[in-house]
This record gives sequence, C-alpha cells and structure tokens, in this order.
Amino acid sequence: MRGLYLVTDRGLCGEKAVETVILQAVKGGVSYVQLREKDVSTRFFIEEALNIRKILRPYHVPLIINDRVDVALAGGADGVHIGQEDMPYAMARRLLGPEAIIGLSVETWEDVEASQELDVNYIGVSPVFATPTKTDTKDAWGLEGLHRIKAFSRHPVVAIGGIHPANVKEVLDAGADCVAVVSAICASDDPEAAAKELNAIIRSGK
Amino acid sequence: MRGLYLVTDRGLCGEKAVETVILQAVKGGVSYVQLREKDVSTRFFIEEALNIRKILRPYHVPLIINDRVDVALAGGADGVHIGQEDMPYAMARRLLGPEAIIGLSVETWEDVEASQELDVNYIGVSPVFATPTKTDTKDAWGLEGLHRIKAFSRHPVVAIGGIHPANVKEVLDAGADCVAVVSAICASDDPEAAAKELNAIIRSGK
Repeated sequence: MRGLYLVTDRGLCGEKAVETVILQAVKGGVSYVQLREKDVSTRFFIEEALNIRKILRPYHVPLIINDRVDVALAGGADGVHIGQEDMPYAMARRLLGPEAIIGLSVETWEDVEASQELDVNYIGVSPVFATPTKTDTKDAWGLEGLHRIKAFSRHPVVAIGGIHPANVKEVLDAGADCVAVVSAICASDDPEAAAKELNAIIRSGK
Repeated sequence: MRGLYLVTDRGLCGEKAVETVILQAVKGGVSYVQLREKDVSTRFFIEEALNIRKILRPYHVPLIINDRVDVALAGGADGVHIGQEDMPYAMARRLLGPEAIIGLSVETWEDVEASQELDVNYIGVSPVFATPTKTDTKDAWGLEGLHRIKAFSRHPVVAIGGIHPANVKEVLDAGADCVAVVSAICASDDPEAAAKELNAIIRSGK
C-alpha cells in the first residue's frame, strides 16, 4: 500500500455526486478508494458500488467497501475496510477469500498488537489527528503514535484522520506507507486538484 | 411456512432483552424468528445472531436475519428476509446458497408479479394492516389484498403488519399460510403468553 487513499463521505461531498468526486480524485492520482455509507439502503449501496467499480476499472484503482461484507460481495468490490465494531477479521477473510484486500482500523495499542496475528492487508491508524469527520473514535494517535506503530507492526500502515497538504509530509516522515483523506478531497471544490496537490507531496517524499 | 413468526424490534422490547423475548416467544410456540436491527454495529448484530442461534437450536426454530446477508453468513443464520430496498434476491440467493430460507416483502402488485419468477421461500405481505412499527412501507394490503395475493401467488404467504389476537383469525381466513407479528409479542408484558394466545388461534383454525 502506497500513495493516496480516498475515503468517501456523502455529507462532505455536498452537492457533488459521490461518483463525480471519485472520478476526479482518481484523475488526480488517488490509488485506493474506500466507499463509506451509513444512511443508505443496502440496495442503494450495492448499486453505487457496482457503478463505482465501473468508474474505477480503467484506472486499475481498487474499490474497498467500509464495514459491509455483503455489499462488497454483491458489488464485486476488491475488499473491505473494517473497524473494531465491524465484522471480526477472521469471518470477513473467510467470506471474502484470500485475494480480497482487508484493512483493519487500530484505535488502541491492544488493537495494534492483536493485528500482528492477522493476515490483514494493512492497518488503518485512526485517527492520526483529531477530526470532526468521525466522532466515534478513540483519542488521536498523533505522529508519535504513528511512528511507534510503524516501528512495531509487520503490516503496511495507512494513516487517516485530519491529514491535509500542510501536514502530509510529517505523516509520511512518521512512517505512514499510505495516506488516507476524507475531507481534504470530498469537501474540496476541486477534488482533482486537491488529489494532485496531496499526491505531488507524497511522490516527492519517496 | 406455517404457524407463528416473530419479527423482533429492539425498541418495542423496552427493558426486556431481545434474547429473553425470543426465548419466551419460542416457549410460547413461535415457529420462526426474524432478527431485525437497524441501529447497532455489525459486530453487535453478528454476536447477537450467534447467541440467538444457540437459544433457538434446541427448539429447531430457524433464525432469519432482516436485510443483512453479511450478518446471516457470519452469524450462521438459516436465512434472510429482504425488502425491496435490500439486496436484490438473486444476489442474496447466490451468496447464501440453495438451502437458505429467503423471504421477500411484497409491497405492490408489481412486487407480487415479479416474485413469481423467483424461487423465494415465502413472500411477506407487508403490511396487511396499517401499523406504527414500520413507517417506510406502502399502503396496507388489507384482507382483500392478502386474499388476492394468495389466489395468485405460487409462494407461501406470510402476513405481517398490525396482526393481534383479535384479527388473526380473519388473516388466516384471507389466505395467510403463516402469521408474523412484531408488537403483539415484543411489546407484551408476557411474550410467552402472547405467543401462546396467538398460536392457539392459529392451530384451532387449521
């Protein structure tokens, strides 16, 4: 896992369609897309996933579904991102198979230690910085916490939470393999330009 | 499908645990249990399903999950009940396999006609009577609508919506193979007695 990872937020997209934000973000260089929905029907979520899969295919960008293994299976997604309140990892792996991308959020040090025993594809260090996007998370890890996790973990580390162009460099310096953003792209008036700006910083640091 | 079918509602259970209501209802003669949850995490829903499966096993009562195929798969349930806003039937059947019980709500005559082409295990005629439990449904079918569906459909018919001891006889007379209730059991001070009362009427009519 390297590069820029978009996590969608319907509310932050405002009047822009989620599909439009995704397409522009991918044109701006996003390497992974996680579709996150909380207040839509299962059928809507599946149809949206199928649509977005079509949008992403020409760019070879994987589609990852937040939480919902049923939507990932029915929507032909490449994997799921699960949190500690979602399906237990072993069940998700059994249902999705060995080829699926499965990422797991770590919110406490116990989560980090437990993830060492799992063949997850990445861990999501969440949140790195405090953020208004997610209110149900634990304390922020900070750059210090991110660094400690990177030194300990055998998994690729995706950093998420409050990351924007002004702090992405220090997130990478602290050890993030991949940088995930929500509002920095979804809430931007120009998602393609926002993705390009972030991506240029990420690429220059490698 | 015959007999009495309980659909759970956490809110209507009030201070009673959902598991307690289910156990009492099964002791009172319920033949099917559908676990319906809307505002709990995926992990909670799966753990609840696993617990309830254990409760039901000695009684040989199938556990059906509302909407969530992922929870049904991970929770070892016997099937799912899907509405028109949930996963399309064909996908659910593909994911759950030929042995699963899959029920489908029909809310319009078009839904009834479309269900003839599907190998669903039953159709849920929803709602038979207007009910405060579900506010997102179409107009009530009434006994007339239920009768018309039974005459037309090749599937077992489960009637749901506003059914209680005083009207269950006419629901059966109108053609219901099976009677589903929510508040008549969940909101009762004595779910076992409530189930027994309904079940006695159902059995006497056969």
